[in-house]
Amino acid sequence: MNEMYNAIVGQSGGPTAAINASLAGVIKKTCESEKIGKIFGMLNGISGMMEERIVDLSSLGSDEDKLSLLSKTPASFLGSCRFKLPEEDSPIYDRIFDVLEKYQIRYFFYIGGNDSMDTVLKLSAFALKKGKDIRFVGVPKTIDNDLPGTDHTPGFGSAAKYIASTVREISADSAVYNVNSVTVIEIMGRNAGWLTGASALARYKGLGPDLIYLPEHTFHFSQFYDDIAKISKNKKNIVVAISEGARTKDGKYVCEAVSNGIVDVFGHKYLGGTARVLEGFVRKKFGFKARGIELNVSQRCAGHLLSKTDISESFQVGSSAVELALKGKTGIMTAIARMSNAPYRSECVAVDIAAAANQEKTVPRHFISERGNDVTEDFIQYAAPLIAGEVPVEFENGLPKMLVLEKEA
Amino acid sequence: MNEMYNAIVGQSGGPTAAINASLAGVIKKTCESEKIGKIFGMLNGISGMMEERIVDLSSLGSDEDKLSLLSKTPASFLGSCRFKLPEEDSPIYDRIFDVLEKYQIRYFFYIGGNDSMDTVLKLSAFALKKGKDIRFVGVPKTIDNDLPGTDHTPGFGSAAKYIASTVREISADSAVYNVNSVTVIEIMGRNAGWLTGASALARYKGLGPDLIYLPEHTFHFSQFYDDIAKISKNKKNIVVAISEGARTKDGKYVCEAVSNGIVDVFGHKYLGGTARVLEGFVRKKFGFKARGIELNVSQRCAGHLLSKTDISESFQVGSSAVELALKGKTGIMTAIARMSNAPYRSECVAVDIAAAANQEKTVPRHFISERGNDVTEDFIQYAAPLIAGEVPVEFENGLPKMLVLEKEA
Repeated sequence: MNEMYNAIVGQSGGPTAAINASLAGVIKKTCESEKIGKIFGMLNGISGMMEERIVDLSSLGSDEDKLSLLSKTPASFLGSCRFKLPEEDSPIYDRIFDVLEKYQIRYFFYIGGNDSMDTVLKLSAFALKKGKDIRFVGVPKTIDNDLPGTDHTPGFGSAAKYIASTVREISADSAVYNVNSVTVIEIMGRNAGWLTGASALARYKGLGPDLIYLPEHTFHFSQFYDDIAKISKNKKNIVVAISEGARTKDGKYVCEAVSNGIVDVFGHKYLGGTARVLEGFVRKKFGFKARGIELNVSQRCAGHLLSKTDISESFQVGSSAVELALKGKTGIMTAIARMSNAPYRSECVAVDIAAAANQEKTVPRHFISERGNDVTEDFIQYAAPLIAGEVPVEFENGLPKMLVLEKEA
Repeated sequence: MNEMYNAIVGQSGGPTAAINASLAGVIKKTCESEKIGKIFGMLNGISGMMEERIVDLSSLGSDEDKLSLLSKTPASFLGSCRFKLPEEDSPIYDRIFDVLEKYQIRYFFYIGGNDSMDTVLKLSAFALKKGKDIRFVGVPKTIDNDLPGTDHTPGFGSAAKYIASTVREISADSAVYNVNSVTVIEIMGRNAGWLTGASALARYKGLGPDLIYLPEHTFHFSQFYDDIAKISKNKKNIVVAISEGARTKDGKYVCEAVSNGIVDVFGHKYLGGTARVLEGFVRKKFGFKARGIELNVSQRCAGHLLSKTDISESFQVGSSAVELALKGKTGIMTAIARMSNAPYRSECVAVDIAAAANQEKTVPRHFISERGNDVTEDFIQYAAPLIAGEVPVEFENGLPKMLVLEKEA
């Protein structure tokens, strides 16, 4: 048997605009190491690996141009999956470890959110129990910024930058007519309001959101109407940023407020979207021009507008994962520690995977204004450095280039 | 009375990401002319002008930095209005000409779409009839590209570039899971499919829309299902681009297909949005994962992703309008003539305002595929040059800067 062991990397969960920068970090670092033979990629995460849908990525390691393009290509280059590992008495574990042994894998890297960290947790525990020397290291990603154990998650900064830029632009657009208007912008994050809060960064010369509602704070329609009425005394065009996950005190989503009794032709209860629901209520209550806008998946895939801070850190958490695995670490996740805020400086550290798996980090109370309709200056200080800096886009025929996997490779 | 006459400029109708480039062109050229005194701006178009809500823009003329920033600032810098002039026996005309005389205006520039060109048409006709030497020149703008008399409209290229980039990114995002999926992207343009067609430019290494439905071609649900079924035999993740204005053969919008009998709590007939409606139908019919996405107003205000071709031409139509007015022209619109396609080259020309006002230019039949589910190579050749080139974004604290009017100036 060969003395040289190989590495494998996979991506899991929802894609982001920065997840491939972490992949590029893993590929580059593994290829630089003399201790590692090949770097394989799982197609569609652990699900694809079990079917031996595996590609050899080693040729990318020395191709700086392709690695650079990969770092700014949105969505999961290797494909993704949503697969939660069962408990350890399942035959699935034997299958997984058979594949790992067949490909002589000693280093296993998994880029994902809480569910993916659960996969790393279970596989590392299984390997330790069975005395197998395979190191499992998790690499965090999620636009939602809801992973504990890390100051923030790779992918959040770029999503926040896109959201703040877009909210500023929509705010300019919504202010052109000399009539009362309310524009409600719905932002991703079902349980954590980090991205919705980031809309506050859009504020600039009267532009930006006037009201910000996070899912961490109960939404009261009466308070919302009061807020609108108060602002409309001094300002014609009001912009509201609200989380898709905003809930009223009975625990129901705001978007469920008009669904009672409405069933669409498919027999499903109709859920209208938070922004659209508030649009309707504002129009009825105030008679103002109203528009609901859902920013949708562009929040997680706008590769044409990336945060340099985010892409650099995303690359580094990938690279750092390889270093830690080479040192024998397993059952850990690489994380970002903020060393200083002005000037901003961060470092990669290792955290126990159990601290990150299956848990959600929501926006703390001191980041939310007392009335619950804005974020605080503390939040701004926290978020502002994460959107700093730009990544030059490579254009071809007027459009951003991407690195796309040739599936037959 | 002073021998030196002044100029005034206004913006009208829906904003675009390029409308301020035309404004910058007007300002720069008027300030360069020794024949023109001041350049005034109407706040909120002709409506604001009648209320004498007028600002002096002359100081901008020699400020190259501000003019450059203005050129890439989205939305109408001066504000906009939606106001259709009545027939000429109305006292409104006396009011308008009183204001023009008070401000010693000889040159009147109005940047807008078909309705705004109607304003130019009526005011120029009235002035000629009354023997007043005031020159009225229209400057075209609209993302919809539906103005006749010009090869394309300023604003279209930047919107098309944003749409194609975003559709490519969403397409990458939608392809990460190894399951059948259909992503339906709804694009602006109620009667004209130019922007929806531009999504074809997104195609790249398997990414981009598989099906494109314009409002110019009748939408048949049965054909749509056949199209999806056929493509799904060879491709798991299907992307559909469809115009918000797609209609079935009874003339109803696609989004009306599920509204029968559904009335929301406000008593309005519920219109769900074309993409969302097709999402529901695809899920029911095929059992596929389905997602409807409305690109919404970012299509017209994404100042962070502009076409250099578009911004240059938008500036030139503004500049050219001033040259034509100085030559004594009135009752005209500046237009873009395509002189050659490879290499692309255009010129500004004057067209009679009556040819542009109150009319819509839709996508011609030879730009649409025979089956009506795609655009042709002719369309691609037409649209591709218009998204070419990039405008450097000025970032400040990680976000695009904008020039915002100090309303008290």
